Amino acid sequence: MSNIRHLKPAGKAIFKDRYTKKVKELLTGWENEKKGKFGLVGLPLSKPSISHSGASFAPEAIRDAMQSYSTYSGELGVDLLDPILDFGDLEMNPTEIVENQRRLYEGMTDIFATEAVENWFMLGGDHSISYSSIKAFSEHYGKVGVIQFDAHHDLRNTEDGGPTNGTPFRRLLEDHSISGENLAQIGIRDFTNAKAYHDYAKEQGVSVYSMADIRYITMTNILARELRKLEERVDVIYISLDMDVLDQAFAPGCPAIGPGGMDSNTLLEAIFQVAKHPKVMAIDIVEIDPTIDIRNMTSRVAAYAIIQFMKGKNVK
Amino acid sequence: MSNIRHLKPAGKAIFKDRYTKKVKELLTGWENEKKGKFGLVGLPLSKPSISHSGASFAPEAIRDAMQSYSTYSGELGVDLLDPILDFGDLEMNPTEIVENQRRLYEGMTDIFATEAVENWFMLGGDHSISYSSIKAFSEHYGKVGVIQFDAHHDLRNTEDGGPTNGTPFRRLLEDHSISGENLAQIGIRDFTNAKAYHDYAKEQGVSVYSMADIRYITMTNILARELRKLEERVDVIYISLDMDVLDQAFAPGCPAIGPGGMDSNTLLEAIFQVAKHPKVMAIDIVEIDPTIDIRNMTSRVAAYAIIQFMKGKNVK
Amino acid sequence: MSNIRHLKPAGKAIFKDRYTKKVKELLTGWENEKKGKFGLVGLPLSKPSISHSGASFAPEAIRDAMQSYSTYSGELGVDLLDPILDFGDLEMNPTEIVENQRRLYEGMTDIFATEAVENWFMLGGDHSISYSSIKAFSEHYGKVGVIQFDAHHDLRNTEDGGPTNGTPFRRLLEDHSISGENLAQIGIRDFTNAKAYHDYAKEQGVSVYSMADIRYITMTNILARELRKLEERVDVIYISLDMDVLDQAFAPGCPAIGPGGMDSNTLLEAIFQVAKHPKVMAIDIVEIDPTIDIRNMTSRVAAYAIIQFMKGKNVK
Amino acid sequence: MSNIRHLKPAGKAIFKDRYTKKVKELLTGWENEKKGKFGLVGLPLSKPSISHSGASFAPEAIRDAMQSYSTYSGELGVDLLDPILDFGDLEMNPTEIVENQRRLYEGMTDIFATEAVENWFMLGGDHSISYSSIKAFSEHYGKVGVIQFDAHHDLRNTEDGGPTNGTPFRRLLEDHSISGENLAQIGIRDFTNAKAYHDYAKEQGVSVYSMADIRYITMTNILARELRKLEERVDVIYISLDMDVLDQAFAPGCPAIGPGGMDSNTLLEAIFQVAKHPKVMAIDIVEIDPTIDIRNMTSRVAAYAIIQFMKGKNVK
Amino acid sequence: MSNIRHLKPAGKAIFKDRYTKKVKELLTGWENEKKGKFGLVGLPLSKPSISHSGASFAPEAIRDAMQSYSTYSGELGVDLLDPILDFGDLEMNPTEIVENQRRLYEGMTDIFATEAVENWFMLGGDHSISYSSIKAFSEHYGKVGVIQFDAHHDLRNTEDGGPTNGTPFRRLLEDHSISGENLAQIGIRDFTNAKAYHDYAKEQGVSVYSMADIRYITMTNILARELRKLEERVDVIYISLDMDVLDQAFAPGCPAIGPGGMDSNTLLEAIFQVAKHPKVMAIDIVEIDPTIDIRNMTSRVAAYAIIQFMKGKNVK
Amino acid sequence: MSNIRHLKPAGKAIFKDRYTKKVKELLTGWENEKKGKFGLVGLPLSKPSISHSGASFAPEAIRDAMQSYSTYSGELGVDLLDPILDFGDLEMNPTEIVENQRRLYEGMTDIFATEAVENWFMLGGDHSISYSSIKAFSEHYGKVGVIQFDAHHDLRNTEDGGPTNGTPFRRLLEDHSISGENLAQIGIRDFTNAKAYHDYAKEQGVSVYSMADIRYITMTNILARELRKLEERVDVIYISLDMDVLDQAFAPGCPAIGPGGMDSNTLLEAIFQVAKHPKVMAIDIVEIDPTIDIRNMTSRVAAYAIIQFMKGKNVK
Ligand SMILES: [Ca+2]
Ligand SMILES: [Ca+2]
Ligand SMILES: [Ca+2]
Ligand SMILES: [Ca+2]
Ligand SMILES: [Ca+2]
Ligand SMILES: [Ca+2]
Ligand SMILES: [Ca+2]
Ligand SMILES: [Ca+2]
Ligand SMILES: [Ca+2]
Ligand SMILES: [Ca+2]
Ligand SMILES: [Ca+2]
Ligand SMILES: [Ca+2]
Repeated sequence: MSNIRHLKPAGKAIFKDRYTKKVKELLTGWENEKKGKFGLVGLPLSKPSISHSGASFAPEAIRDAMQSYSTYSGELGVDLLDPILDFGDLEMNPTEIVENQRRLYEGMTDIFATEAVENWFMLGGDHSISYSSIKAFSEHYGKVGVIQFDAHHDLRNTEDGGPTNGTPFRRLLEDHSISGENLAQIGIRDFTNAKAYHDYAKEQGVSVYSMADIRYITMTNILARELRKLEERVDVIYISLDMDVLDQAFAPGCPAIGPGGMDSNTLLEAIFQVAKHPKVMAIDIVEIDPTIDIRNMTSRVAAYAIIQFMKGKNVK
Repeated sequence: MSNIRHLKPAGKAIFKDRYTKKVKELLTGWENEKKGKFGLVGLPLSKPSISHSGASFAPEAIRDAMQSYSTYSGELGVDLLDPILDFGDLEMNPTEIVENQRRLYEGMTDIFATEAVENWFMLGGDHSISYSSIKAFSEHYGKVGVIQFDAHHDLRNTEDGGPTNGTPFRRLLEDHSISGENLAQIGIRDFTNAKAYHDYAKEQGVSVYSMADIRYITMTNILARELRKLEERVDVIYISLDMDVLDQAFAPGCPAIGPGGMDSNTLLEAIFQVAKHPKVMAIDIVEIDPTIDIRNMTSRVAAYAIIQFMKGKNVK
Repeated sequence: MSNIRHLKPAGKAIFKDRYTKKVKELLTGWENEKKGKFGLVGLPLSKPSISHSGASFAPEAIRDAMQSYSTYSGELGVDLLDPILDFGDLEMNPTEIVENQRRLYEGMTDIFATEAVENWFMLGGDHSISYSSIKAFSEHYGKVGVIQFDAHHDLRNTEDGGPTNGTPFRRLLEDHSISGENLAQIGIRDFTNAKAYHDYAKEQGVSVYSMADIRYITMTNILARELRKLEERVDVIYISLDMDVLDQAFAPGCPAIGPGGMDSNTLLEAIFQVAKHPKVMAIDIVEIDPTIDIRNMTSRVAAYAIIQFMKGKNVK
Repeated sequence: MSNIRHLKPAGKAIFKDRYTKKVKELLTGWENEKKGKFGLVGLPLSKPSISHSGASFAPEAIRDAMQSYSTYSGELGVDLLDPILDFGDLEMNPTEIVENQRRLYEGMTDIFATEAVENWFMLGGDHSISYSSIKAFSEHYGKVGVIQFDAHHDLRNTEDGGPTNGTPFRRLLEDHSISGENLAQIGIRDFTNAKAYHDYAKEQGVSVYSMADIRYITMTNILARELRKLEERVDVIYISLDMDVLDQAFAPGCPAIGPGGMDSNTLLEAIFQVAKHPKVMAIDIVEIDPTIDIRNMTSRVAAYAIIQFMKGKNVK
Repeated sequence: MSNIRHLKPAGKAIFKDRYTKKVKELLTGWENEKKGKFGLVGLPLSKPSISHSGASFAPEAIRDAMQSYSTYSGELGVDLLDPILDFGDLEMNPTEIVENQRRLYEGMTDIFATEAVENWFMLGGDHSISYSSIKAFSEHYGKVGVIQFDAHHDLRNTEDGGPTNGTPFRRLLEDHSISGENLAQIGIRDFTNAKAYHDYAKEQGVSVYSMADIRYITMTNILARELRKLEERVDVIYISLDMDVLDQAFAPGCPAIGPGGMDSNTLLEAIFQVAKHPKVMAIDIVEIDPTIDIRNMTSRVAAYAIIQFMKGKNVK
Repeated sequence: MSNIRHLKPAGKAIFKDRYTKKVKELLTGWENEKKGKFGLVGLPLSKPSISHSGASFAPEAIRDAMQSYSTYSGELGVDLLDPILDFGDLEMNPTEIVENQRRLYEGMTDIFATEAVENWFMLGGDHSISYSSIKAFSEHYGKVGVIQFDAHHDLRNTEDGGPTNGTPFRRLLEDHSISGENLAQIGIRDFTNAKAYHDYAKEQGVSVYSMADIRYITMTNILARELRKLEERVDVIYISLDMDVLDQAFAPGCPAIGPGGMDSNTLLEAIFQVAKHPKVMAIDIVEIDPTIDIRNMTSRVAAYAIIQFMKGKNVK
């Protein structure tokens, strides 16, 4: 930096061990023409949320949580050393919510158009961002299959207000950005959705797996079945991870928490399993509000989910 | 409300989706002669508690938590649309603790006498309220079996002070309101009870299941065994749910939290299983202190437990 | 309620002393044709806020804080027994921010048209609500003078996004709903506003009083001077109270807190002094976010400010 | 402790500087026949409180806060080295509230009977403890004058429930333990008391000073006037300090906080001023709930108040 | 204490039931020549920690948490009535970190030399204390096997700073205080350790069990295997329990929390299983920072772990 | 950034108004040869602290708090547009406390040697950093006068451990880096310092002003007197601002908080007054622990203090 003794750039005091590389150190600012295996972008929009939400702070919190992890998996015996190209965040207007959703769509359209990376990480924001992201994704990459981990269907009507974080998959279906047969909803919880939307999911041919299904069929079997089905039907697969699929004990920082959900280990193993599939090339993570989280626990799970995705892509 | 545009009653801004009914909307103020399937009453007494407790705030917190749930079970395929007749709360004196326990007994005596509903939900308060409630219940409905989910026996002597939240079942046994053979205590935790009370339970013929029993016998088998036994011995069955039966990770808002307890899913499935039995017609939920809870997690479990009870009663 | 002993309506256990009337008990639901001295309405909009804000929860929090006060002033020797007609809240759409500002304008237009009361209390929400409220107020009541207590000018341009909580007075001036000479801004803080907006205020003839002015001129003299000036120029006077005019030690629950502000006693005395003036007939209170407040301190100040207004109107 | 290197008794790691004596180190367990200048006893009762209160934890919190202070006053130039004889706490029954008030009376009767010290510090508990303490005090020491710092009169009727923390001075007056002319209430706040009790105070001849009186007359003058009056009428003077006399910014840990109160400096100077009077020989400190306090701020003020009392007694 | 009615020593109000003995009551101050079955000492050092840590407060928090447990195990049918000899804490210098590590070594050397007890409980502190403790232990008791429950290897190099809480086992290996073949690391988590240290562990012959190993091999089998191996190789076995081996949902109070860890029940059963082995005679518990814990949950697990150890030693 | 629509660098969503410049935007990374009016450096060391302290996080928190302020002073009529050259932070070793103090001395020596700026801002860290900083400062700039705002003397002996945050001025005096006559301590609080250190201050000729002095003499007069004295005796003046000089209500985020301190307005005016003096050219700000602060209130005061210093340097 200079010949001033002991000077370092301003910032959190971080102990540096020469043999340890933190996942956050893999983040590398993207610039035109840069190519890589993994790319990341923040979609900091949460004003569409039905409940009060500070999910717009999550991209920063999740990037910070990457500092808690090192790059090495002893279980797999691989060191994840590929950089993650960080595109930055999409800029939001303070009062134009629907316009912001259009901005997200435009930004993601341009980003996917770069074809800069093989695998995309989108950090929400509330779940409304998945509409913009998946729509742009499908326009660029072709027929999309979606594996949605969520306690909720997110198939609400839009006449009562919106588009909100309750409507993304309804709009994607109505738009024909995706088709119901290519959508799997895993972790749907009892007494958390209206009958009308459960019925709508069924009519559209959506694969719905409740928490009871996970207990009885097992996550491994559910995923194997859905991946088998999707790989024949679609060009690419996109994971949409709503953190409230987890039980409140494991994800205290979601606006809509509750008991009876998944534990974090089951989720993390699931991400690994799915990411191994060659058609899987994108994941968004939504509904984390760092302002109500406990010790950033929920952002820590999110960062780990991204790493599990990367681990999946490192299995030979 | 008037012809003033956009006006609505004061209160929390709640997004209203026309297809979604919240469980809280099932609450309907009880009035004389009204009859129904479910009834609810608050017993906001926590000054008897041995440890500092704001459990008197729980009835309000649990009712509010019902707003987090919709009425539909996709797993069972039923929409729970029966109203819950809400009797309100019993009024407590600020300094007369024992008199308050008498008040609870008198109030519950009158409430059960209405025979307004088929199934009763009593929201505590600390566990001392179960003495008053079960005593009144047994006087009205006949021989009572009790399934108590609890880390503790609650069989303390009363010479050292009380009656407290440590004594309700001792008093019910001494009163002959219930008999030991008709009491099942499930979730009793090691190093959480004195030998004297464990021995007393055994002498009285109480069925005691520890956390190890749940791991080795399974909850399903324990409940099947106890229901089979009780259905032959009693007229009606009453569930007494002390939230501290849960592990501290799942119920952070109880005064007496600790590790090594039940997870919330096991508990919620247990309530469903028990409620299916036709002799089961009452549940009380106690020992939630909303002033120390984390994001109302524990009240959310309580509200879900009530819904699981209702779901049990909707199985054909 | 019935002949059930000890039964009372559900809700917080509130000790009732027969000689004590709480200010919250003065709240009386408004119905068509009802007339009175004081009226209150909630404007629960905070999505326009530049910073993350849960100010939409403030109307409920402020009403609840009224429960902490009794109706009697020993200092003045009067018991405030006039009811406060509560109109309820205006209903907000989850995603249409600008439309919501129009809704607030329409709702307030209809409410003022009732001429139901002599004095109006508007509970925000963020400061953007004052645009809608003052515009409707001026259309109904004539030429309006505004006394704004605020650390900020709120005269931002709207080209950079908005209308936000940074723009209400800019829009009112551009609209000619008010004129600069009829606006007094009191409590403006150094290093909290841009030069451009300070200059704009000066150009428009706004009376600007900094915290230093309050220390050197005194609040009493500032208010006396401004009331004298306004009483000759306008038909009615409206107080707009942005809680962040207070020092962070006294109002920890505002999104934009900081040191160097007013203490709560100075503010409360100021409200009393202004409210005594016969042309003063409205107050809005904004920028309280109960989700970040400490023990509802800021809502407690807000409730007290309303009572001080009522006290001012009870001076003979 | 032994010849084990570096061993010390278990407990908080406390840095020990050989020249610094902490006020907590002055605490010395009282034993029969021990005499001294200052004595202290805990009255950990808060179940009589109208609002939910953990004030029973305050004696421990205040003793701990004494660790934050050293014994030396640079302003006065004296080092307070007299021990404080610590009598311990009075033991409370978990369910017998009125019996506990009797216990406090009996315990304090016995303690005052020891005549072990010249000045007494009583640590509540809620304000109900003052009834027991002052009654015992007056029976031992003769005609008592009381200087009560409080936002409230605490003159409620007892028919609506109680005796609570709202009734101690009513009961002392009705008992003739004190007479109204010998009671000064300082810091009484507007809209915090009912007219009936304000009128009762006046009828009984109580000296009532509002917050406005403190601003206009000044605390120094009020105290000078009241001490002059009392010194002719009574044998001994007792200070009853309800921490909620402070503004919520200075005492966030009281159950009944609000704005418009005293700042801590005014209070601490007042204690010093009063304690200098030779007839003043007791102080109780009440209404601190450590479970809701912020960083023990309110207990820190309490500990400082005791030290200011000791400082007053060290003025030659 | 005296003939003063109701007087008790100062301290937390603790309800005393004559039949219940709390584990904290087993703590008995050690004095020269006292012998017993269990001994406990606090090692309150956390300044070596890489991340900001208040683990120096843990010895006090864990002792306090013992108050939450009674001595009786219904599952085993034994009442743990052996006293725990409490040696107190070792005294730390505020600025000499490396000197403090030496002090811990000296203190533990002297303590083990007393041979006062059969089983030792060491309460950290951060994990750096294990270096001092195990070194002293091995010098006194002979060849030591260590079962380390930890998410991390703690085998960092010391050239980059330290010795820290990341280096204790590296130093013990380099010192030959232990040998790699006699160290089992259980609960090692993916993406939480650098490849270099994983490789170092392997080179040294350390037995490493990841979280995946626990899921697939089971804890019971892992422990059986390791105990079998160690019992032939070593004289004594020492458990080093780093609380961050638990998932963040079960141990929110560790500096380095994360998802994907062990649940508390698995850990508590493991401690019981290990403690039954006759060669196991010591346990240290580290990395609990009470200043960031939630309701002392993590200290509660720690206290329970000690009790499980005692229970293991009570199996005949 | 690219031709991707709406993309911006990752980070907190910050609303950008084209006419508003935030003080944080004035921060400009220093590079060799760059010169300016103001310079800033972080000294993130808090392990020397006697009490548990996370003050090492303060440099980052204070820089962030600069984002809350704009550059314009309406009171003075100046826009502060000079850049602040940010040197970054000095790097600390995790376990070598005394070595770290040497590092700070070396780093500051090199930084002052650049003569890059006219005025220096040093962000601690605990108060121990002032020893290193003032020593280096005096070696470069000549005879130094120090105005220390502090509740404490910080003149402890170093035999009992240290050098800690209790010893910096003792060491500077013993070193002859400063002389007692050139040190003014303002805000010293009763019962917060030992007699021995008060006496030592007096012997050394230190000017000591207690909180009572501030009330009676006024801050303005104290500062005028001390500046007059220092300007004749020294070459340069350095302000050392220990935030605990403020009352706990105004600075809740210091390790050693208490009542009876300064309010923030008095402090901020004092900084302005002192900074106007041409010999004043440095300020350090210490003892803020962001991990225990409330909504960063204390860091907000710190950032404001820096701005007040800059304002003082902009008075013509
Ligand atoms: Ca969703
Ligand atoms: Ca969801
Ligand atoms: Ca119980
Ligand atoms: Ca229990
Ligand atoms: Ca404003
Ligand atoms: Ca403002
Ligand atoms: Ca009182
Ligand atoms: Ca009071
Ligand atoms: Ca470790
Ligand atoms: Ca670890
Ligand atoms: Ca200092
Ligand atoms: Ca200090």
